[in-house]
Amino acid sequence: MTDRLAGYGPVVPFGTAMPAWPTRPERRAAGLSFAPDLESALRAAGLQDGQSVSFHHHLRNGDGVLNATLDAAAGLGVGDLTLCPSSVFPVHAPLVGHMARGTVTGLRTGYVSGPVAQALGQGVLARPAVLTTHGGRARDVESGRTVPDVAVIAAAMADRAGNLTGLYGDEAFGPMGYAQPDAAHARHVIAVTDCLVDTLPVAPAIPGHQVDQIVVLPRIGAAAGIVSGTTQITQDPEGLRIADMAARLIAASGAMRDGLNFQTGAGAVSLAVAARLGSFMRDAGVTGGFACGGITAPLVDLHRAGLFPVLRDVQCFDLAGVESLRDDPGHSPMSASEYAHPDRADSVVGALDVVILGAAEVDLEFNVNVTTGSDGAILGGSGGHADCAAGADLTIIVTRRAARGSSRIVDRVTCRTTPGRDIDAVVTEAGIAINPARTELIDRARAAGLPVVSLDEMRRGLPLPETRGDQGPVVAVCEYRDGSVIDLVRGRDGG
Amino acid sequence: MTDRLAGYGPVVPFGTAMPAWPTRPERRAAGLSFAPDLESALRAAGLQDGQSVSFHHHLRNGDGVLNATLDAAAGLGVGDLTLCPSSVFPVHAPLVGHMARGTVTGLRTGYVSGPVAQALGQGVLARPAVLTTHGGRARDVESGRTVPDVAVIAAAMADRAGNLTGLYGDEAFGPMGYAQPDAAHARHVIAVTDCLVDTLPVAPAIPGHQVDQIVVLPRIGAAAGIVSGTTQITQDPEGLRIADMAARLIAASGAMRDGLNFQTGAGAVSLAVAARLGSFMRDAGVTGGFACGGITAPLVDLHRAGLFPVLRDVQCFDLAGVESLRDDPGHSPMSASEYAHPDRADSVVGALDVVILGAAEVDLEFNVNVTTGSDGAILGGSGGHADCAAGADLTIIVTRRAARGSSRIVDRVTCRTTPGRDIDAVVTEAGIAINPARTELIDRARAAGLPVVSLDEMRRGLPLPETRGDQGPVVAVCEYRDGSVIDLVRGRDGG
Repeated sequence: MTDRLAGYGPVVPFGTAMPAWPTRPERRAAGLSFAPDLESALRAAGLQDGQSVSFHHHLRNGDGVLNATLDAAAGLGVGDLTLCPSSVFPVHAPLVGHMARGTVTGLRTGYVSGPVAQALGQGVLARPAVLTTHGGRARDVESGRTVPDVAVIAAAMADRAGNLTGLYGDEAFGPMGYAQPDAAHARHVIAVTDCLVDTLPVAPAIPGHQVDQIVVLPRIGAAAGIVSGTTQITQDPEGLRIADMAARLIAASGAMRDGLNFQTGAGAVSLAVAARLGSFMRDAGVTGGFACGGITAPLVDLHRAGLFPVLRDVQCFDLAGVESLRDDPGHSPMSASEYAHPDRADSVVGALDVVILGAAEVDLEFNVNVTTGSDGAILGGSGGHADCAAGADLTIIVTRRAARGSSRIVDRVTCRTTPGRDIDAVVTEAGIAINPARTELIDRARAAGLPVVSLDEMRRGLPLPETRGDQGPVVAVCEYRDGSVIDLVRGRDGG
Repeated sequence: MTDRLAGYGPVVPFGTAMPAWPTRPERRAAGLSFAPDLESALRAAGLQDGQSVSFHHHLRNGDGVLNATLDAAAGLGVGDLTLCPSSVFPVHAPLVGHMARGTVTGLRTGYVSGPVAQALGQGVLARPAVLTTHGGRARDVESGRTVPDVAVIAAAMADRAGNLTGLYGDEAFGPMGYAQPDAAHARHVIAVTDCLVDTLPVAPAIPGHQVDQIVVLPRIGAAAGIVSGTTQITQDPEGLRIADMAARLIAASGAMRDGLNFQTGAGAVSLAVAARLGSFMRDAGVTGGFACGGITAPLVDLHRAGLFPVLRDVQCFDLAGVESLRDDPGHSPMSASEYAHPDRADSVVGALDVVILGAAEVDLEFNVNVTTGSDGAILGGSGGHADCAAGADLTIIVTRRAARGSSRIVDRVTCRTTPGRDIDAVVTEAGIAINPARTELIDRARAAGLPVVSLDEMRRGLPLPETRGDQGPVVAVCEYRDGSVIDLVRGRDGG
């Protein structure tokens, strides 16, 4: 064979050992290896003091991987780590000890609840925690703003080529949307599974070429723990009345038309809105487009009834969601980036017509707090809240107007999670308060005979929350989805 | 709010105009625009002399986009283009004129048939065409070896955010696996559709953030044209006998066990192997893993019968495949990279236990030619042939032993597409020839009473093909999947 060919170039004959073509990103070239345990895997990953380690939260309050990984890191004597779990749950209580001992000194996450949240308020973490939105987190990882040094990814099933899924295995938890940016961009990826097979029985959520190491544990956690908090439709008459008003507001707004794209959270009242809207749609002969977000049984029911032909699923909030993602062809997973990346014109939140969200506090400027209680104690964080509010055409907050005797409608939110400019309406048992900037929505609601009130009217007759005393140092920085700082959370011991 | 926070850094307050975070790759930042026609889109893409333009072949012989794009490029006076369609079909006959006039001077593709193939043999193209494998093409695009300047992507449906699917629309053609590497890596992406909607009714095959421009045409082609050639199970007794022997060889080899991953081509005999194997599996109570490749009705039938719980689909060869991809939850699309990237340990071809492939010629070293006829005329190319043969544990060629009276078993293949080292067995109506290196397979086949013969015996009694006379200049370079040159195709006019 000739050495060189005009119009082609140098001819490398078949059988020549070819140089490896670059792969993107380059680190994949090393190939996949199996580590006997998490300590070995972290050592092989070259984990060092001061690095960042990411996790996904698809196992929610049933996750066993974050704790096991931190124990292994502590065993290696590594410290000063920044953890980047997409969310933190009560099950992660042992993290408090790792923070107190300096194994972990930084935290970036979309949501934090339980003992870790409490400990943050008490200043256990060396540096302020950073509370991001789910979309902001995906953008941070993909843009290179905060790239995890090591991503530790729980997989309900893995195969010998490193392909991962959350759909099968004893602890099947559903899609792996929050892990996908990390798998694609982290400097090193460790998959952790309790179910290793020759070949996945399904297309992978994360392809094997993104995985550097696999560790097989006896158990990655308990998938039953993905149901934390309520994922049932409320049966309470007041809650149902709020839901009915919210659904009527959607109908009055003009959004209830063919192709309606809809998201609701997993709260009992939010799910009641979905059910009520579904019955309005059925009566009106309206077929929606997609329903999305955390998927629960009530959304699966609407999907199977044909009212929302597509479910876009970034995580499952119950096992009915997992089963549906496995069995229903119209039910598709999505990555956190596809879901809520703030700079993507094709994001799913950007295509939302309507989103139903909750609130711990709403203030007279329509700002919403889902990050702290009125006492300043951390109880959550944005997660997808600010992403959906910004993306949807119609953002409705549903909430009781009071909790434990105090009004949830306040002069100024204790912590601003989502700016009031992105909130269109607040629905409580006292009626519907509509953002004054939404004059057309106000007109339509009034024309439909809905009980439109002001936020001020809404809080009448309720005691205001206690005001807080002196405040301590900053324990958490709340980043809006664009990466700017929308608020600070201060410690509770005045230190 | 403070300017700077210890342990966090500079604080950018909410409401500040944030700098755009980098997106990967960077070009997405410009956002999506709509072009009134292909000429405008190519002009806006900055198409220049000497650049490369890629296409996918999911519409196969029904594609209308490649021809329309070339007409537009010619209208702009752009020349010296290198085309990178994943395959070329008879419908692309007008390309011959564009080659003759110098609008197109280079071609990189996995498969080429019809008038363009004929014209290549006559030296119409200024530079030698490069015939790659489907997996090699994906690697070339992803690795940066050959990145298209402009990818023109036919979409059966697009939405206003640029999300693309092949599953819906008047000309729905199925998955978009061959377009996915191009969409992710080309310097500029133009989507062409005849069905623009507000929001896709399904998760996108290609996300909108990878798309720079959308052009809406009256018609992207004719999806009925994806059925080119036979995609039916043979009814011919000789063909059925070949299929039966091949299926028995699979059973004898030990590969017919639970979890069997299987691919077959769309030829009439290959599909008969699938059907026969399915009936053996049913009788034996064996449940396979995945079936993959180009998907046809016979594979859908096996899937729906539960024999292969998963279909991995890189393209549809008939409309039953399209419908199944839309409706069957176990039927998943894959990209050309996931399918056949030669350097990916998680590739689907690498997980194959058995593949059934065709041949135009097989030589005594088991080399296979699917690129040319014995007269040297180009009639196809590897496509996925060499990828599957390398990836599968058991590679079986099924073919009649003669065509038009000449033996297909030859001393030396006219063109080597797939090296003999990757071929395990050749099954014709004269029996089963097994690669002498596969001693265990030979033993098992003999133990099962199968008619094992040598290739030499197989061709006895048949006239050999006519030998070719003097050969002309190189018209095509055949690249093996690793990028090395496995053979050259010479012109037929002795020039």
